[in-house]
Amino acid sequence: MIQKTRFRARYAESDQMGLIHHSVAIVWFEQGRTELMSALGMPYGEMERQGWFMPVVEAGVRYRSGARFEDPIRIETRITRVSGAKIRFDYRAIHDEEDRLFYEGFTVLGCTGANGRPRRIPEQVREISLAAIEPAE
Amino acid sequence: MIQKTRFRARYAESDQMGLIHHSVAIVWFEQGRTELMSALGMPYGEMERQGWFMPVVEAGVRYRSGARFEDPIRIETRITRVSGAKIRFDYRAIHDEEDRLFYEGFTVLGCTGANGRPRRIPEQVREISLAAIEPAE
Amino acid sequence: MIQKTRFRARYAESDQMGLIHHSVAIVWFEQGRTELMSALGMPYGEMERQGWFMPVVEAGVRYRSGARFEDPIRIETRITRVSGAKIRFDYRAIHDEEDRLFYEGFTVLGCTGANGRPRRIPEQVREISLAAIEPAE
Amino acid sequence: MIQKTRFRARYAESDQMGLIHHSVAIVWFEQGRTELMSALGMPYGEMERQGWFMPVVEAGVRYRSGARFEDPIRIETRITRVSGAKIRFDYRAIHDEEDRLFYEGFTVLGCTGANGRPRRIPEQVREISLAAIEPAE
Repeated sequence: MIQKTRFRARYAESDQMGLIHHSVAIVWFEQGRTELMSALGMPYGEMERQGWFMPVVEAGVRYRSGARFEDPIRIETRITRVSGAKIRFDYRAIHDEEDRLFYEGFTVLGCTGANGRPRRIPEQVREISLAAIEPAE
Repeated sequence: MIQKTRFRARYAESDQMGLIHHSVAIVWFEQGRTELMSALGMPYGEMERQGWFMPVVEAGVRYRSGARFEDPIRIETRITRVSGAKIRFDYRAIHDEEDRLFYEGFTVLGCTGANGRPRRIPEQVREISLAAIEPAE
Repeated sequence: MIQKTRFRARYAESDQMGLIHHSVAIVWFEQGRTELMSALGMPYGEMERQGWFMPVVEAGVRYRSGARFEDPIRIETRITRVSGAKIRFDYRAIHDEEDRLFYEGFTVLGCTGANGRPRRIPEQVREISLAAIEPAE
Repeated sequence: MIQKTRFRARYAESDQMGLIHHSVAIVWFEQGRTELMSALGMPYGEMERQGWFMPVVEAGVRYRSGARFEDPIRIETRITRVSGAKIRFDYRAIHDEEDRLFYEGFTVLGCTGANGRPRRIPEQVREISLAAIEPAE
């Protein structure tokens, strides 16, 4: 399953180079991941309320072209790898009208309890994630 | 007591107008407030660990001139009003070398328990704050 | 005209109090203003490309209740005052399903050229804004 | 040369997990890079004023432990690779008192003119950067 998330780039996200600041890619990826998890029936906020936390343990981004204020953004999010303790999400941020690639990247999420100690991913989350895997592009 | 907090404006805080984005004033004010509370012996993080939270209930900013990336910033923070349930902080963000005023503003903080319900400000915090009051400029 | 802008609160916007950080209100207001200006046929990005800049000169927010991650947000934006040199926008951030008020506030925007010097608001922008005025609530 | 940059983690940078949000690592790295470039006599703001821009083309972060509000942060920044068109910076974000590693990562910067077109890095910047190279840890 590939989740498509759409919104406009915000002025506050721009920087003095006239582009969206590169740190924002990570925030946009997270928004894509949030929507994918909800679409898969495992909304992340609900996981936290039940005492499961999924901190990001690794992230990477390749910047292909610069996004700008008011650009229509489409984030394509997919799960590409699932183990007992980690899930990897891959992302592409794209100009939604021109289909131009802005950024591509990934984050790997671990799992902890409320005390911050590593835990195995809840069985149900692992199964849903495994079933949703898409190959990375 | 007037707390002076110094740092440099960050690139990520700039916007495409070439100025520090106006929402950042609120973040800088908070940094000044954090240092003032620590200097007064009531570090805010410690308050939260003991179950007291102080959400912002009102904020206001007047923008006098634009700050820019790499500008040396000085935040001057003072407490200007204290009641049983609220504390008001006033702030001035200034170019630390040119003494030029960037922003002036205030925030009013309320007090709640961990459940989000309003509470009276802890007696010790109220007393320290009262003793630290400075007139607003 | 009252512009309604809808989106979900982001995880990156939350803070350790479990609420959306209060500085984010200013960013959300800006997003509402951006959409209103586009809806009125005067997209702000286009203004900057033509050499007109509208920096925020004053801002104020009253926080009524806390927004949380994943909350459906509705920003209601209106123009409430227009002079030769300034436009005032008023905003309400609301839980889009419960109709609960999170924040209400305003920003006053001035006008400058690319050199940062104050200018009168472009005549066309002033006329459109005047025609769009709604009373503040 | 290894530049050490010190500051405290901000409340606005925390998230509802009680940790500093992972996107902030990228902002902190940038702050370390800004200070290293200034210390090397090539302040980045000055480069932009002369028409040279250095956008980030790749970034990566490994998160080792969670930073928290008020933690004393030390960013260690070094240049690890220089070519005609790119410079790579490596970073470590560390608890400045406990010497605990929070994050390690890198960014690769390209070079463009004001028009966004790729350019070779200015000769002087390339020479200074080459002379400052430190091996990655």
